[in-house]
Order: sequence, then structure tokens, then C-alpha cells
Amino acid sequence: MLRLALAQVDPTVGDIAGNVAMVVQWSRRAADAGAQLVAFPELMLTGYPVEDLVFRESFVAASRAAVQQLAADLAAGGLGELPVIVGYLDADGPARTSADATRTRGPRNALALLHRGRVVARYFKHHLPNYGVFDEDRYFVPGDTLLVARIGGVDVALTICEDMWQAGGPFTVAGQAGVGLVININGSPYELNKDDVRLPLVRRRAAEAGAAVAYVNMVGGQDELVFDGDSMVVGADGQVLSRAPQFVEHLMVLDVDLPAGADQPPAVDSHEMAVSRVHVSDAGAAPAGPPAPGVVAPRLRAEEEVWRALVLGLRDYVRKNGFKSVVIALSGGIDSTVVAAIAVDALGASSVVGVSMPSQHSSEHSKRDAADLARRTGLDFRTEPIQPMVDAFLANMSLSGLAVENLQARVRGVILMALSNQEGHLVLTTGNKSELAVGYSTLYGDSVGGFNPLKDVPKTMVWQLARWRNAAARQRGEQPPIPESTISKAPSAELRPGQLDTDTLPEYEVLDPLLAEYVDGDASREGLIRAGHDPAVVDKVLRMVDLAEYKRRQSAPGPKISIKAFGRDRRLPITNRFRES
Amino acid sequence: MLRLALAQVDPTVGDIAGNVAMVVQWSRRAADAGAQLVAFPELMLTGYPVEDLVFRESFVAASRAAVQQLAADLAAGGLGELPVIVGYLDADGPARTSADATRTRGPRNALALLHRGRVVARYFKHHLPNYGVFDEDRYFVPGDTLLVARIGGVDVALTICEDMWQAGGPFTVAGQAGVGLVININGSPYELNKDDVRLPLVRRRAAEAGAAVAYVNMVGGQDELVFDGDSMVVGADGQVLSRAPQFVEHLMVLDVDLPAGADQPPAVDSHEMAVSRVHVSDAGAAPAGPPAPGVVAPRLRAEEEVWRALVLGLRDYVRKNGFKSVVIALSGGIDSTVVAAIAVDALGASSVVGVSMPSQHSSEHSKRDAADLARRTGLDFRTEPIQPMVDAFLANMSLSGLAVENLQARVRGVILMALSNQEGHLVLTTGNKSELAVGYSTLYGDSVGGFNPLKDVPKTMVWQLARWRNAAARQRGEQPPIPESTISKAPSAELRPGQLDTDTLPEYEVLDPLLAEYVDGDASREGLIRAGHDPAVVDKVLRMVDLAEYKRRQSAPGPKISIKAFGRDRRLPITNRFRES
Repeated sequence: MLRLALAQVDPTVGDIAGNVAMVVQWSRRAADAGAQLVAFPELMLTGYPVEDLVFRESFVAASRAAVQQLAADLAAGGLGELPVIVGYLDADGPARTSADATRTRGPRNALALLHRGRVVARYFKHHLPNYGVFDEDRYFVPGDTLLVARIGGVDVALTICEDMWQAGGPFTVAGQAGVGLVININGSPYELNKDDVRLPLVRRRAAEAGAAVAYVNMVGGQDELVFDGDSMVVGADGQVLSRAPQFVEHLMVLDVDLPAGADQPPAVDSHEMAVSRVHVSDAGAAPAGPPAPGVVAPRLRAEEEVWRALVLGLRDYVRKNGFKSVVIALSGGIDSTVVAAIAVDALGASSVVGVSMPSQHSSEHSKRDAADLARRTGLDFRTEPIQPMVDAFLANMSLSGLAVENLQARVRGVILMALSNQEGHLVLTTGNKSELAVGYSTLYGDSVGGFNPLKDVPKTMVWQLARWRNAAARQRGEQPPIPESTISKAPSAELRPGQLDTDTLPEYEVLDPLLAEYVDGDASREGLIRAGHDPAVVDKVLRMVDLAEYKRRQSAPGPKISIKAFGRDRRLPITNRFRES
Repeated sequence: MLRLALAQVDPTVGDIAGNVAMVVQWSRRAADAGAQLVAFPELMLTGYPVEDLVFRESFVAASRAAVQQLAADLAAGGLGELPVIVGYLDADGPARTSADATRTRGPRNALALLHRGRVVARYFKHHLPNYGVFDEDRYFVPGDTLLVARIGGVDVALTICEDMWQAGGPFTVAGQAGVGLVININGSPYELNKDDVRLPLVRRRAAEAGAAVAYVNMVGGQDELVFDGDSMVVGADGQVLSRAPQFVEHLMVLDVDLPAGADQPPAVDSHEMAVSRVHVSDAGAAPAGPPAPGVVAPRLRAEEEVWRALVLGLRDYVRKNGFKSVVIALSGGIDSTVVAAIAVDALGASSVVGVSMPSQHSSEHSKRDAADLARRTGLDFRTEPIQPMVDAFLANMSLSGLAVENLQARVRGVILMALSNQEGHLVLTTGNKSELAVGYSTLYGDSVGGFNPLKDVPKTMVWQLARWRNAAARQRGEQPPIPESTISKAPSAELRPGQLDTDTLPEYEVLDPLLAEYVDGDASREGLIRAGHDPAVVDKVLRMVDLAEYKRRQSAPGPKISIKAFGRDRRLPITNRFRES
């Protein structure tokens, strides 16, 4: 039996000293719980993803020095006997510069096994993802040697993230090597229902390796990614032995029955990977203290999962970038209201400033709903009427139509940025994914802001989230944060008299499924019409999406929650004359 | 002897029908000149790069249909006898979706050889670039078979772009196959002095293949890339036989003495690539009409090369996105003045609107210089004083310091966007690379705009360009467009009384070399100090660069002219606590 610890923690990109300290602290917790090994996530010491920092020799050197320092710190802290598995950035050969590009690819997405003050062994990630948000062929040289460590008498294969997502390679070779356990350390970003994909995958790999699999993932927000944790241990037979809660730091400690390594481990004959074996420790006494049984965290429902991803993504962006507070334009509409509720959950009401900026076109219910939200949540509420500023522009320029509509949104943007400059708040912008897709927003107007919690949330899901959040409050006996009339009223930008979103767009119940198929699914016009969408609507919406690329290119970052988020996940040219026909 | 034609043309991304028509038109010109084969650039039929359009099945299908249509159109137009070599997007197996990512990688960066109404043979790019601005591992499956076509009795190997930039593979195999000529079709973006890199490379590959090399590159702007052409033919001995002028469409027609293919071509034994041979035509009569000797275009000096890249990049962005005119805020400073001069060269004075937006801090010389620029160039000049609007904000909000400075820049941004909305101009923004690097700009203020010609131009180079452009005008007996006092005065943002850039930044002569080493060269703090930079300046500048990432993320696109441009060429996290120390 082995007592495993998986440290589902939240490192910060570039804060190498802080991340080292975090490993020491959580290793102590693991040792105190009697663990016989502890594993940390992928690129734990640098944070993940570090992108082109990989090309900076000084950054690679800092990571390499940190892993040595960590080994020494652990030993100095009396933790030398605990095998610690940790991801970091290494280089093999001269560090690669971007100029010589593919020629000398030095950097490695690496894993170190630390024991008794030393780096006992290293492993380099074998499968490099280069799709979706990932560009790892740009950064790393793949490793070609599987590391198998005997720890507490058990043969443990050590792997990194994508090694598990592709068939062949490390897990297959681990099976041939006769290991009892495969540890897989991850920086695996959240997507809605991704936990439904991960578990079957872990099971399949456990079957391929004929071994238990321990999957540890980081948690936290990094720019447009949110890591949800979801760490787990699955037996060789596919049974879930333990599964961590999502979106929180968590130390999973678990006793697992594992077969002892053979005296003569099988030789492996793979053309794909060599095997390197290292001996750490033989089977010893049973772990001290009370037993550590598995705990399987309950599955969150979709709305709660997304809500918690957005809260964590916002909180970490604010915290890791050194902000103390945020400011949000409160229109009384559903988007800004939901963003305010997320911000209050993430940061506390005292760190959230809401500004109502009514114009002559603002309805009474809008102003009332914004104030009601403020009362319900306790956020810092201000009112800045925009008409005097709008009038100053209108008096000095000759504007009409759309130019006047956009002017109002831009005056609001200027006010928000002035408050940000004057008081130091991060400006949150609130355009949802549906709006971003069709370009239904004013560039440098309502799009102003440093972070957008709803960037990847379709409008219909914004409403779902609002209803779920209110219901959750009622269930806890708290006041629902979101005014009911905000949820029930027809959406409007209120930039001209009587304006409704449906003047310009189809109903969101029609629009959102179409966008999911076109944007996330790369469907063709023909395919959309075959799927039952109205051809006229298809033509109109596709054209809007295609022509709005220039606005998205200047949009604020926001957390990815879908299979394909705007940003590095979907890379389209602005200049593009292709029209589906 | 073979009469080659290389068509250095400017396709448009997504305009498949237009690109097909362009191939027919230029093939006719080649045939009229007696050419015995004509080659077009990489991904000619779709434009390049098409990015995630590759994942759209309908797009791949349109490209596949277009190449068949093109073959038929050529034959129908009486051009069937002329072998035409053209790049297009193909797929081998089921088209890949982004969801199944690396699993079924169908799409191919392909080349077709067209003859007598048919696609006679295809070749798939072997080396895929995945560094700098390139993500081709994301998009394409590499080919593993070299195509050798006997044309006019000569064995010709057909290759694509990166195939030439990496040693091994196609050129080596072509040498083993005993070819007389290697054709390399390109979408190779411009960088300053890249022509100095290309020629030695072409020569090295000619030596490796023991054959002449014909290099054809596209020309034109596509979002942040400019293709400069620079097509050339180099003999097996490394001699430059012909070289096209940069930045213009050009048909190079050239008679080349080439060895006839052997009756029994050598067998090739390469573990890397197979060889596929196709017979098009035996040696025939000498080409009709007058001989086509080589012409080597004179080398441009650096300033002219950059100027022409910026003019072409802007002209194509405007034209291909359907704009008719641009609007620029004219401060009288060097950046906006140079942008205006570029815009006038690109679009003509009647398509350029310049707006002077003086405030109480605007100097008399600024207003005078802006008006002088307008007189010199003939652009459409307006004046919109900002004080009334600024005063409206100040009367209604309690602002001080930086907030008041930024407010002025943002009011100007609102005015520009209102003019854009009202009159349909594309807004040009004018922040140079040095400003962008250190974040010396107001987000949603002077950064407002859809395109930025100076995005990749350091401030010291902006002055160089101005001096060169004036000198070039004088040489042609024209009035220099740029007022001398704009070039000679100390730069200032004029957002507070007496403000100078040097209040905040080191002298640009100090700043720019430091930025080139840190941003373009990934130098460390230690390396910069070792190179002689003042440690205090290094610390200050590096911190400014690191903290400005969030602004760059929302900045307008602009043409890449350096080895590393901000944008997809340099991918850094916003959330990043790493500080060089």
C-alpha cells in the first residue's frame, strides 16, 4: 500500500520564488498526513502557460535554479525523505532563441523527482499539444524516455498532461514496463463538461497501462484560462478511488493498494520511447496515523461549474495582477448585473464599484434595477449622468444615427477609464459571447475594460447563470443578488428611443445555437440550413460574425469556458473575403 | 533551354474566385511572353495565411473545387498547353475539425501542377514552420513525397516555402533525383533585410540540390504581414540570374539553360521522402519571340524598403477590407505626420482626412506644423478643438493628474470614432513600436484605430523614414511632405504644460537599442548591463515593457517589419510576475 498525496494548487506565472514556497508548504502538509509521495502540477515552478517567456534564457535559468533550490529547501525543512514530483521548465542543450526557431529547440516541459535534497531524476513531456489554445510545438522539444521510479517498493511511471490525451507513447510503454501506478501531472484548462471527458480518458489509459492512474491538475486563473483541478485517482480496473472538488486548492491524500515492483522488471522494446528506471525506496512500514480513504467530490451542475470558473478566473486575474478593486458600468441589464454578482462573489462587495450612467434614453426600470442590484449586493454605487458630456460633443460636431448611438457608449467608456485612472480600479467589461460574435457592441464604448468575465458565455447562458445564482441564494436563505425584473425584461442597449436587441438580432434562443455551430463547430452555411436554421437568418448572422473579427481583435481577455473561445483558441484573419454561400 | 515565368502577384485571403481569375490572367501574360511554365505563390488560391479557416470544411472544399475549376478555365481559355504551378489548400482524408485536433490531421498546404485541363500532380509541403508568426503544425499534415515533373525535357522538383528554409528533405532528395531545377513557391513575409538572408539560403539549397532554383514569392499586405516578393532565379552555381523588384506585382520571364532529364533517372533511397515522377512534356522547339534575359532589380536601401512595406501594408488593408478613406489625428508630431505621409503615398491625398484636435496644452508650433503638413500633401484637413468636451467631463467628475491627461487623449479618440461612424473612414492610429513597448500611450485614447502603420517601427526609425522621404521628394524635384520642424523638435504628448517624452522615458537613442535587445532579442537584465546599458535605465524600461502587455493586447494591427513584431510574433502572458533581476 502507498499513501499518495496530490497537491491541487494555484501557482502564479512568473512568481518562481512564491511557487517554490508553495511546494514546500504543501509538501509539509502531505508529510504531516503521512503521505509517501506528493505530486504537484505541470510547470508548477514557473506557472502555466508561460508562452514566449520560454525563449528568455534568464527565465529558463531561473526555473532550473529553482528546482535545485527547492530540493535543498525541502531537505533543510526536514522533508528530504518525502519524494516530491514537480513540474518545471528545463532546457536540454543551449536555450533556444526565437530567431533560430526550430533549429535548436532546447526547452523542455519537464518533471523532476526530488528526494533527499537532490533532483533524483527528470522526465520530459513526450506528447506536445499544438491545437486549440496550445502552441507547445513552438516551445518544447519532446522527450523520448519514460521515467519509472521505484517508490515504497512500487514502480511508478511519471508523465505530463498531453501524454495522457494521446494514445501510444508513455502509457503503453508504462504497461510494457509493468508499473503499478502512473502519475500524470497537469495544466489542463477548464471547459464546460470537460470532467465528463477526463474520467473516461483516465480509465482508458489505466486499462492501457494495466495500472492505477493518479491525475493531478492545477487550479486557478491565468489570463484567459481557468484551471479547475478535478484531480483524481483511478484504479487499474477503472474504479474512481478519489476525486477532488473543482475550483479550490485541495490536498488529496489517499491510501492505494498497489502491486510491488518485480525483482526483475520486464524489459521494454519500444521504438517510440526508451525506459529509464530509478530507485528511490523499497516497501517500508505502513503509513503512520489514521487511514486515508478515498473521497469522491460530488459533480457540480453546469451552471454552478461555469459560475465558479468565472469567479475564480476573475479573482485570480485581479489578485495576480495586483488590483484591489473593480469598476463596472451598471445599466440595469442582465450582462452587467451578472458580472457585478460574479465580482461580488469573487472579491467581496466592498471591492466592487458600480456606476450607473443614465442618458435620456435610459428607462426608469433600468435605473431602478441598477440601484436594486446595488442594494441587494452592497456594492459601492455611484451615478454619473452622461448627457452633459454627450451634449458637448453634439454641440461641436455634426453627428447622426449610429454615430450618436456609439457616442453615448464611448462617453461611458471615458467615464469608466477616468474612474480607473483616478481611483485605481480594474475596469470590467460585460459583453457576452453572443454579442462579441456578431459585433453587437461599441468599440471603445461598452467594450472598454481590462477583463471580461462573460467573454465566452453565450447570452442564453447568462440568463441561466442568473437564475441559478438566485436559486442558490434562496436555498441558502440569502437574498438573491439579481433583481427578477433584470432577468425577465427584453434586452436593450438603450442607445435610441425604444431600442431592443431584437431590432438588430434574431432572438437569442435562435442566435445562440446557430453561433455554437458556426463559431465553435466550424459549420458551413449549407450544414446550418440542413440543421434547420432559417437561410435568411444564417446569411445575416454569418456575415455579422465574419465582419466583426476586427472588434474581437481589440477586445479584453476573459475566461474560456467553452470548447472554443474567442482569442487564441480561434484564430481568424481580419482581412478575409470568404463568405459561406 | 527553358523559358520560366514566375508570377509575383497579390492574392486576397478568402477571395477564391478572384484569385483563380488572377491566375488565369497572369498565365495568359506568361503564355504571351512565350513561357514554357509559370509558377504562382504558396496558397495562391486561398490567400495566405488563412489561419483557422483551415478547420472549415466548406473552405477546404471551396479550395479543392477551385483548383479543378482553374485547370478547366485555363484549358477553355486556350492556355491548356502551358504547365501552371499553383499553391492551394487541399485535404487528404476527412477534413480535420479543431475539436479532434491532432487526431485526424487532414489539411495539406498543397501545390498543383496543371496541364491540359487537369491537375496532373500534387505536392504537399514537407517542412511546416511553427515559430515566429507561423503555426503550421496547428494546421497541416506534412507531405512525405517529393514531386518531380519532366517539363520541356527538364526534370523539375516542386517545393513549398519552408522546404527551403530547413536543411534536409526536399532539396537533398531533389539532388539525389538528379533534377535540373527546383521551383519553390512562397508566402514569405517581409522583414527588414530579409532579402539579405534569402539569397544566401537559395544559393545554399541550389548547391545542395546541384540544380538551379526558382523562388517565387507573393506580394501584398495581409493583416499584420507584408509580402515583399523578391522572387529570383539562381543557377546551380549560385549565380543570380534574375531578381524581381520588391513590393510590386511582377511577371518574371527568364530563359534558363538547364540540363535535360536522363533517360534513366537515378533511383533515390531516402528514409525521409519518396519521389513521385510525372511526365508533362519532352524538350520542344526554342521559345517563340525575342529572348528573355535576366534582370536583377537594384537593392533598396533600408528606409525605402520599410517605407514601401508600410505603404503596401496600409494600402492592401484598406483596399481588401473595403474602405475608401482613412482619418488620422494630426498633432504636428513626427508619428502622426509620418503616418499621414504614408497614407497619402498609399491612397492619394483625397482619401486621407487629417484632424487637428488642439487643447489648451497644444503649442502654436504643433497647430502650425499640422496645418503645414496638410498644405504640403493636400490631404483633407479639419480642426476640432477638444476643450469644450474635456471641460464637460471635468465639470461633472472630480479628476486630477494622470486622469486629466488621459481624458484629453480619450476625447480625441471619441471624436475620431465619431468621424469614422459618420463618414466611413478607417481610423489610423500612430503609436510607434517604442511607445507600444513601454506603454507610453493612452488606452482607448491615442491608441484608438483599426490599423497602425507604425506598430513595428521604433521611434528612431520613424525619424529616419521622415528624413529619407523628404530627401526622396527633393531628389524627384517634389515638395518634401514632412515639415522640417516636425522632424527637429523634441517629442511631446502635450497633455500637460511643458510636457516632454523625456520626462518619462530615456532618450529614444538610448531606449531603442535597449528595446531591440530585450523585446526582439530576449536579452536578460544581466546581458543588457553587460552590453553597456545603465542598470537604472534597464530596470525602469524592463518594468515598463512587462507591465504594458495588457495595452498591447488591445492594440490595433499593423505591419510587421522587424524580426519580432508585437502580436502573434511575440506571445507573452499578461499575468506574469517574472521580473528580470
